[in-house]
Amino acid sequence: MRVNHIVADSWKIVENSFHADYVESAESIFSLGNGAMGHRANFEEQYTGQSFQGSYIAGVYYPDKTKVGWWKNGYPEYFAKVLNAPNWIGIDVHCNNVAVDLNTATIHDFSRTLDMRSGLYSREVTLTTSDGIKLTINSARFLALFQEELGCIKYTVKLHGQAAQIRVSPYIDSNIKNKDSNWDDPFWAYMGQNRGVNFAMLHTKTNKSNFDVCTYQAVSFQVDDDELKAFSCHEEKGRIAFECQANLKAGQKITVEKMGGYCSSLQQPQETHQNHVKQIAHNALNKGFDALLDLQKTHWEGIWKMADITIEGDTKAQQGIRFNIFQLNQTYTGKNALLNIGPKGFTGEKYGGSTYWDTEAYCFPFYMATKNESVAENLLNYRYKHLQKAIENAAKLGFTDGAALYPMVTMNGEECHNEWEITFEEIHRNAAIAYAIYAYERYTGKTAYVETKGIDVLVGIARFWAQRVNFSKDKNKYVILGITGPNEYENNVNNNWYTNYAAKWCMEYAGNKLEQIAKEKPKIHQAIYDRLGLSQSEVLDWKEKTCRIYLPHDAKHDVFLQQDGFLDKDLKETSLIPPDERPINQHWSWDRILRSPYIKQADVLQGFYFFEDHFSFEQLKRNFDFYEPFTVHESSLSPSIHAVLAAALGRVEQSYEFYLRTSRLDLDDYNAEVDEGLHITSMAGTWLSVVEGFGGMRIKNDAVYFSPQLPKAWTSFSFKINFRGAILELFVSISESRVTLIEGEPCAVFLNGESVSLTPKPVLS
Amino acid sequence: MRVNHIVADSWKIVENSFHADYVESAESIFSLGNGAMGHRANFEEQYTGQSFQGSYIAGVYYPDKTKVGWWKNGYPEYFAKVLNAPNWIGIDVHCNNVAVDLNTATIHDFSRTLDMRSGLYSREVTLTTSDGIKLTINSARFLALFQEELGCIKYTVKLHGQAAQIRVSPYIDSNIKNKDSNWDDPFWAYMGQNRGVNFAMLHTKTNKSNFDVCTYQAVSFQVDDDELKAFSCHEEKGRIAFECQANLKAGQKITVEKMGGYCSSLQQPQETHQNHVKQIAHNALNKGFDALLDLQKTHWEGIWKMADITIEGDTKAQQGIRFNIFQLNQTYTGKNALLNIGPKGFTGEKYGGSTYWDTEAYCFPFYMATKNESVAENLLNYRYKHLQKAIENAAKLGFTDGAALYPMVTMNGEECHNEWEITFEEIHRNAAIAYAIYAYERYTGKTAYVETKGIDVLVGIARFWAQRVNFSKDKNKYVILGITGPNEYENNVNNNWYTNYAAKWCMEYAGNKLEQIAKEKPKIHQAIYDRLGLSQSEVLDWKEKTCRIYLPHDAKHDVFLQQDGFLDKDLKETSLIPPDERPINQHWSWDRILRSPYIKQADVLQGFYFFEDHFSFEQLKRNFDFYEPFTVHESSLSPSIHAVLAAALGRVEQSYEFYLRTSRLDLDDYNAEVDEGLHITSMAGTWLSVVEGFGGMRIKNDAVYFSPQLPKAWTSFSFKINFRGAILELFVSISESRVTLIEGEPCAVFLNGESVSLTPKPVLS
Repeated sequence: MRVNHIVADSWKIVENSFHADYVESAESIFSLGNGAMGHRANFEEQYTGQSFQGSYIAGVYYPDKTKVGWWKNGYPEYFAKVLNAPNWIGIDVHCNNVAVDLNTATIHDFSRTLDMRSGLYSREVTLTTSDGIKLTINSARFLALFQEELGCIKYTVKLHGQAAQIRVSPYIDSNIKNKDSNWDDPFWAYMGQNRGVNFAMLHTKTNKSNFDVCTYQAVSFQVDDDELKAFSCHEEKGRIAFECQANLKAGQKITVEKMGGYCSSLQQPQETHQNHVKQIAHNALNKGFDALLDLQKTHWEGIWKMADITIEGDTKAQQGIRFNIFQLNQTYTGKNALLNIGPKGFTGEKYGGSTYWDTEAYCFPFYMATKNESVAENLLNYRYKHLQKAIENAAKLGFTDGAALYPMVTMNGEECHNEWEITFEEIHRNAAIAYAIYAYERYTGKTAYVETKGIDVLVGIARFWAQRVNFSKDKNKYVILGITGPNEYENNVNNNWYTNYAAKWCMEYAGNKLEQIAKEKPKIHQAIYDRLGLSQSEVLDWKEKTCRIYLPHDAKHDVFLQQDGFLDKDLKETSLIPPDERPINQHWSWDRILRSPYIKQADVLQGFYFFEDHFSFEQLKRNFDFYEPFTVHESSLSPSIHAVLAAALGRVEQSYEFYLRTSRLDLDDYNAEVDEGLHITSMAGTWLSVVEGFGGMRIKNDAVYFSPQLPKAWTSFSFKINFRGAILELFVSISESRVTLIEGEPCAVFLNGESVSLTPKPVLS
Repeated sequence: MRVNHIVADSWKIVENSFHADYVESAESIFSLGNGAMGHRANFEEQYTGQSFQGSYIAGVYYPDKTKVGWWKNGYPEYFAKVLNAPNWIGIDVHCNNVAVDLNTATIHDFSRTLDMRSGLYSREVTLTTSDGIKLTINSARFLALFQEELGCIKYTVKLHGQAAQIRVSPYIDSNIKNKDSNWDDPFWAYMGQNRGVNFAMLHTKTNKSNFDVCTYQAVSFQVDDDELKAFSCHEEKGRIAFECQANLKAGQKITVEKMGGYCSSLQQPQETHQNHVKQIAHNALNKGFDALLDLQKTHWEGIWKMADITIEGDTKAQQGIRFNIFQLNQTYTGKNALLNIGPKGFTGEKYGGSTYWDTEAYCFPFYMATKNESVAENLLNYRYKHLQKAIENAAKLGFTDGAALYPMVTMNGEECHNEWEITFEEIHRNAAIAYAIYAYERYTGKTAYVETKGIDVLVGIARFWAQRVNFSKDKNKYVILGITGPNEYENNVNNNWYTNYAAKWCMEYAGNKLEQIAKEKPKIHQAIYDRLGLSQSEVLDWKEKTCRIYLPHDAKHDVFLQQDGFLDKDLKETSLIPPDERPINQHWSWDRILRSPYIKQADVLQGFYFFEDHFSFEQLKRNFDFYEPFTVHESSLSPSIHAVLAAALGRVEQSYEFYLRTSRLDLDDYNAEVDEGLHITSMAGTWLSVVEGFGGMRIKNDAVYFSPQLPKAWTSFSFKINFRGAILELFVSISESRVTLIEGEPCAVFLNGESVSLTPKPVLS
């Protein structure tokens, strides 16, 4: 735990001292994003200490040639990686011709704050330069939610008791490198640059993937309150700096307002970029930083109105959950079906900024419940648009006739990942994609998406499973061999219960959907059959396989078996692992992990999470009590599922223990790796722990059910969800639980099993 | 099959035309080696066409930093790679100042011959240079078996009907590159150079591994029959060329004799290198090429006397088997316990020139039966010397208390390989190393090695297995989870029958050996216990595990199961794979291969090969008939084991089909990859097919048993073995089988079950 210095505050993330060792961690924690772009909290001015520079543009990637030790047939040729984009936030400062640099200056005071209510990141530093001048820097910046190409910076340098010459140079620079590069390829090609009096732009293009990106800035300078019109410009290839120099007296200050950011060919054709961003920049300069910040606040207010969770009695918990909600909103706004939720968002390069099953398995419920339905639809459309690629991906692995295998990791629908045991075998991801369609239908009650688009995805997935199973004469059942389940501490196993069950469910769900459409909308049904070349015999084949799929179960323990042979293991509980050997993935060789009984993240229990109402309370209890003791939770995605299930078992304090493991994972840097970026997708798991865990929220038969439980450590909590246009708030305290209709029309709500009559006034439980 | 142009000849490998496309393949096939060094058949003179330069020094390697896509705990930091060494064979030729180059010249005649009786590689080319001069080059070279640092070249350029100026420049050059390099590191460091009038040497050192290597040459020139004393020298850093220029008349010739090679710090301390090789070179020049060649012939005669196999009625088969025996002898002479048998010998870089289980499983019987016993002892000592490293290797994977896991791939005893499913899981290699000790004892009847050294290896291996098994409460047996068997088309399986059986055998054999020593030599026994910290309870624990190990068996088919769950597979025989999808490892994705029933190489059947007399004929038949139809033989090591077993079942023609797949694998370039080097270790398998297959040779109870069968395609075959000092020849024809004592004292021999009374005269069957 390297960063334990974040000050507890219910709405703000505050750091109030400077530690060179924490700079990279803080760069992650104080990251900004607006769904379309984002960057780490790098200092604007030069910093010669250890730093991890990172600016990112949503959907803009480089196909980095695959690097492996030993090639396996079927590996993809490249890994699509998020790129470190040109720098638009930079502002060099010189004081009497000496560069101001926190690494060489003497720092008297340092603080930075991320105000989650407004999305404003601000910093104040008082320092003495290496040649003895004392000054204070105030910087503030945000990325506009109301204009996705726009970022705004206000940067002030104020002298203390001495006069000095101050030179301030806001610049844009495309000469940047990616940290995570397989072969040190140049990711960007320089295409040109242009400038006016106070506006400058760089045109770069990503190599191979050919995304055009325009990076721009427009600036204004003030000395004290007077605008300073005389400034110069320094241009080199790929770098344009405006430069304003002033001889300040003691107590005087110089301020730069800088409006900048990116426009990419994902947003507009390249020819229009320059005019488009020039317009944005000049409008922004005209309005000024402070007026724009007011606008930004209004937008964040709208988000919090639907998404906030309050926790009373535990400021750190309050801060933790808000930080998670804040970051999820910074990462993905749901406006664009070409984009998705990278596991590190805009906070680092690791995992390539690509899309994983995390989206459907962990993030989907959060966005569905805290946004408009269009956001969930965009997430579904993302996969729908990738269906053809998923079919091609399956074909590469030998599948035919429209079978679709969605990629493990992707940016544009093509598989990127290159570990055979994951890429080829962790195929349960296909089920999560089908499950999201089901969850959407259950939550929204809308059938149009499934009937027109979703059904194509469901059929592709059902076809995959129908081919992926094989008939075992020995078992007289269909089996699924050679797979990796959600527990990645097992590879190439046979008959992983979760995967087999999910495969069965996918074929069943696709078949049932088709039957239902046939009954209700025969024309649509015929169109589907025609479009997909479906036949009745194919659907019957799914049914046959659904009925005869093998689901490993042990009679003695009366539990489902994680996979064939699980009971051959040396079944020692995790409590017997010496503490200095935890986490085992950092201490044990891979083969030892594989043959151990230890479970990285919910596997059988993931099935209980998804398909809760297929099983009895007793079954859940037995399986939970059997598998939990072997679960090491060495994935940031793991504890939240156990938290929800423990709560479902009425074990609120055990649930709370799981909750604690994720809620401040990044703020407290539990895994000593926050410097690489935040765990964005696992943040959605924390939300699940509260809403589906402590809140016990479920959607059944077009109604919302709550079964709240309050952890001892809290005096109360509340959260809001958007259910079919009604914004509901659940408030839970020691004395009461109540559901309030904040906005919209009343809907069916059950609290602890009792129907709640909703009016815009509080209802007592 | 790219090289099908090798002329059939019983003692020679002959190529009699020039094809630029075959140059790299021929460079492999015509490779030379003398156990201490070797090189591909690169032309001496400049060649600007496609070529794969390769000169190698036994035991000299570079630790190339591991390259993987995704790191797994326990991976080694480097892969020890055989190095492409400085070039000592080079001779540049200029004719009227134009470089002679087969790539640009017009070639009239081209032939090359590898005479396996003498180890001489010779080449004759008649060409017209690009500016119209016709000349003939004769080159001949060999690597001395009688002086391991020495190679000898005789190189003649003869003019045809025109006068011309000829310049001949024999050189040594250390500015060379390795083709197989992970990170383009420089493998060699230049340390210095030195020369006399006709002697030159380069001192280089391998980076990181610090092997000093002295590369040298000494030269003499003749025009027609007259020695030419006037020649010059051109020196650059890392390159020394002597240069002799002569204006030749039509019909005149210029000849260079070049003696050269390497001395490495594996052989002598660096300080002595220069004097040592100077002495060797000058002695060699004094004797002259032709006299040295006579000496070489004598040495090869000695080898063939013990190792030859004759086949009548099939010249290609005769050529094939002799080529295999020849190459095995070029690769490993058994003089040095620091060396071993690289899968590509001195013929290419692939597989790093390192040691695999191939040595014990496939090569050991060949060297044991065709060499003196000291050679087999050196192979055993190689592993004995690596015992401590094997214990460290096991410790890295979490094993304790002296458990030894020999590496999958190694140069110095440390593990090199970096695929988790192989490196960590293909642990059956440990059993092959124990089995070689057993095979040595059985063959030689000698107990001293086992009692003094081998027992340490056996105990280390037994300890490994005792820790590697775990008790399954479910099965009430010891199981072995998470392994890869000899069939590498299965990974991370549970209870691979071969591995479980071999583990059981290892613990049993180590325990029995200790008991036997206790009875017969109590003092030695006590010393072993003291040295290894053994206790009676530890040995009893092995016994308990031996008795209770789980050996998967299927009652319905009455066969051993390759692994748990094998019968869940879609058991379609290999004949149903479409021919255009073979080999499957080039056409199918890895996951598809893994879940298929297809077997890369003998797995259960490898157990029947090693432990033949533990099982009945009926058991062998059932298991062979069950597994053979699923075996794709996509390892060059595979068909030979099936050949031996098919012969044991009395199916000589089926055995012959397997034999054909390996005997001319390289000569006919079945896999279109001979350009990368020869499959040295699989050549020993071909020998096994003849000796243990068609010859039916077995050693039991201190006697040799033969049960010969003659394939229809042959009229006769014979082979020799050295059994405890007696050189025996088995001759098999349509009309008779006979065993002859060629040399040494009579020993116990059985032919088709009947005892043979051996005298130095032929004995009729």
